[in-house]
Amino acid sequence: MTTSLAPVITLTTDFGRDSPYVAAMKGVILSHHPAVRIVDVTHSIPPQDIRNAAWVLEEVAPYWPEGTIHVVVVDPGVGTARKMIYAAWESAVYLAPDNGVLSRLARRSPPTTIVALESRQYWLPTVSNTFHGRDILAPVAARLSLGLDPRALGPPLAKLVEIPWSEVSVMPGKIKGTVRSIDSFGNLVTDIAADKLTDVPTDPEQVCVRCDEHETQGLFRTYGDQPPMTLVAIIGSSGYLELAIVGDSAEMMLGVRAGTPVSVIW
Amino acid sequence: MTTSLAPVITLTTDFGRDSPYVAAMKGVILSHHPAVRIVDVTHSIPPQDIRNAAWVLEEVAPYWPEGTIHVVVVDPGVGTARKMIYAAWESAVYLAPDNGVLSRLARRSPPTTIVALESRQYWLPTVSNTFHGRDILAPVAARLSLGLDPRALGPPLAKLVEIPWSEVSVMPGKIKGTVRSIDSFGNLVTDIAADKLTDVPTDPEQVCVRCDEHETQGLFRTYGDQPPMTLVAIIGSSGYLELAIVGDSAEMMLGVRAGTPVSVIW
Amino acid sequence: MTTSLAPVITLTTDFGRDSPYVAAMKGVILSHHPAVRIVDVTHSIPPQDIRNAAWVLEEVAPYWPEGTIHVVVVDPGVGTARKMIYAAWESAVYLAPDNGVLSRLARRSPPTTIVALESRQYWLPTVSNTFHGRDILAPVAARLSLGLDPRALGPPLAKLVEIPWSEVSVMPGKIKGTVRSIDSFGNLVTDIAADKLTDVPTDPEQVCVRCDEHETQGLFRTYGDQPPMTLVAIIGSSGYLELAIVGDSAEMMLGVRAGTPVSVIW
Repeated sequence: MTTSLAPVITLTTDFGRDSPYVAAMKGVILSHHPAVRIVDVTHSIPPQDIRNAAWVLEEVAPYWPEGTIHVVVVDPGVGTARKMIYAAWESAVYLAPDNGVLSRLARRSPPTTIVALESRQYWLPTVSNTFHGRDILAPVAARLSLGLDPRALGPPLAKLVEIPWSEVSVMPGKIKGTVRSIDSFGNLVTDIAADKLTDVPTDPEQVCVRCDEHETQGLFRTYGDQPPMTLVAIIGSSGYLELAIVGDSAEMMLGVRAGTPVSVIW
Repeated sequence: MTTSLAPVITLTTDFGRDSPYVAAMKGVILSHHPAVRIVDVTHSIPPQDIRNAAWVLEEVAPYWPEGTIHVVVVDPGVGTARKMIYAAWESAVYLAPDNGVLSRLARRSPPTTIVALESRQYWLPTVSNTFHGRDILAPVAARLSLGLDPRALGPPLAKLVEIPWSEVSVMPGKIKGTVRSIDSFGNLVTDIAADKLTDVPTDPEQVCVRCDEHETQGLFRTYGDQPPMTLVAIIGSSGYLELAIVGDSAEMMLGVRAGTPVSVIW
Repeated sequence: MTTSLAPVITLTTDFGRDSPYVAAMKGVILSHHPAVRIVDVTHSIPPQDIRNAAWVLEEVAPYWPEGTIHVVVVDPGVGTARKMIYAAWESAVYLAPDNGVLSRLARRSPPTTIVALESRQYWLPTVSNTFHGRDILAPVAARLSLGLDPRALGPPLAKLVEIPWSEVSVMPGKIKGTVRSIDSFGNLVTDIAADKLTDVPTDPEQVCVRCDEHETQGLFRTYGDQPPMTLVAIIGSSGYLELAIVGDSAEMMLGVRAGTPVSVIW
């Protein structure tokens, strides 16, 4: 892929789709840098659900042009002592509250640079107590896209705030994980990565996948391999084990929620 | 209208509003062609509803710059034998699964070129089994917008997959059709095109429009011609007969769904 | 902030997010001006709710590049005698039905120019009766962004249509206002502007905020200052008094709707 010349700024928030708050952020960004590209990742993070946002950021991270600036506003602590930060990886930078929302990314590899946003001259002249996305992150993102040196934004930080994540346990003949999120089709996305499943036999008769009291045989390649209304286990497009009802919503049919344990047994 | 210099890529999917899957497709497109314009048509096609998508594509088709590249991902057969295709008309090209989703467009005029997407060198290096929109269509769209010759994408195809459509029947003094979709205001959009209604008398007293057990007199010019809460029949903005409750949702008030028969009698 | 070179066109409608009607408007705009930037403010104005749209326009107005063209389609009278207008302020122009939707902006300062859109040569060749956003406003917006003199659009008008607004009453020790809208977090946004609250004591013990039968002490700086599930009154990010339940939806918890009286007593 080629490096982007026109910088891209993405937005990930819990403002709800179509919120005028999102529009205000875009207006601020364009006021500072009219030529920048703004792309929505999602504004439907469940309100204040830092974990959900952390998974989404991990999932979409591989697909952006080099140098993309990701702005994240899932910020239950807005206006309190939590820091707003700049965190850089090799291929992209993030502006976010330092509340764990970047911790899935950081588990893959630690950021190369972290800066606490403290230099008020790069913010809007008036900063509200409740909307730092618009008043701090939007103008800072626009200025970074124009070439501002991130070291000007404030003092460096040694590490990000972390939040605990349940671990996937791998035993001989058994892997235990968790439903981590549910996609818009009602598919149950687990935290069991494909690379943990390499020892699982290919013969469906020898593999059982269990979620709550529900069970299915085998790991399949795609939804279309099984008849409609069947529960199937597949490696989803994000590289994690998913449970799906062919042609319907597993969430609705099974009543399963994020946090439910999942096991693969062979 | 002028021909677009900056190419436009549109997206039509059933991923649900605000899906990170959509964001991943945009990231892939921008990674290959940072300057391209990406516009959402809709991501709220009912899951796997090929017919609904086919109507939407027909409805918005007239309004885009020449050379627009439309990417369509309503793909219940993802990962199975169905082909992914390029189909070109004079003013626009489409990238879609070959499952009938382009068949309303093809009824208006057949495409000038159809190509099966088989040249893997234009796809992402790793192709998942469940997300060909991101892994195949997005990079191919970006490359077409950069000038790639579509003949490089794969072998030509003679025709598109077709799906059956209920026909509107025109008799002396009577036209029978169907509610084909419901818009966001709850208006019932039928498949009876305006050009079939030229013989209908203009005197409202002489015309009856029936939908299920509901009935209204006359074909009106606009919603505002009748008092609030009245059922009215009008020629909608897409050029088809619509039934609406003035100031409210006909879908909610009448409990009517897509597929319900509609007749105009005079 | 710098003046935008690439003009921006924003869209505010009640079409419902993800409506193909919105996509058609974007297609029309890009067909006339491929290089223009289009940004959604919101498409989730409650259907035909002119007042809600008027508040949204006021709220986001300060944040756009100079010269932004705002297109507003909340138009219960589409196809009737209501005029479509161009209204200019110093920093931005608006294209909208003349139905009061610009009246909150006009209360802040009257527009410098108003023109009735009557010159059909700037519209689409065929104008439907029910979709003037696509057929009139979209092509006019694109042409303005290309430099068309607004005086060419039609005859000047002396004033905008006004709609009545309930007034905030300020008495010694008491301010009475109204919940004017509810945001996507379920926060109750009132019509009591921050500048009316300068006399309110800072000691929470001395201030009571009442909404319906619900009551809370004090005006706070931010949501995070109080324990979860507490009702708090704060100055929101739009500069108006808001009532919020910390970490939850005040709308759902209290069952309060737009129009409910709110008072601040000290």
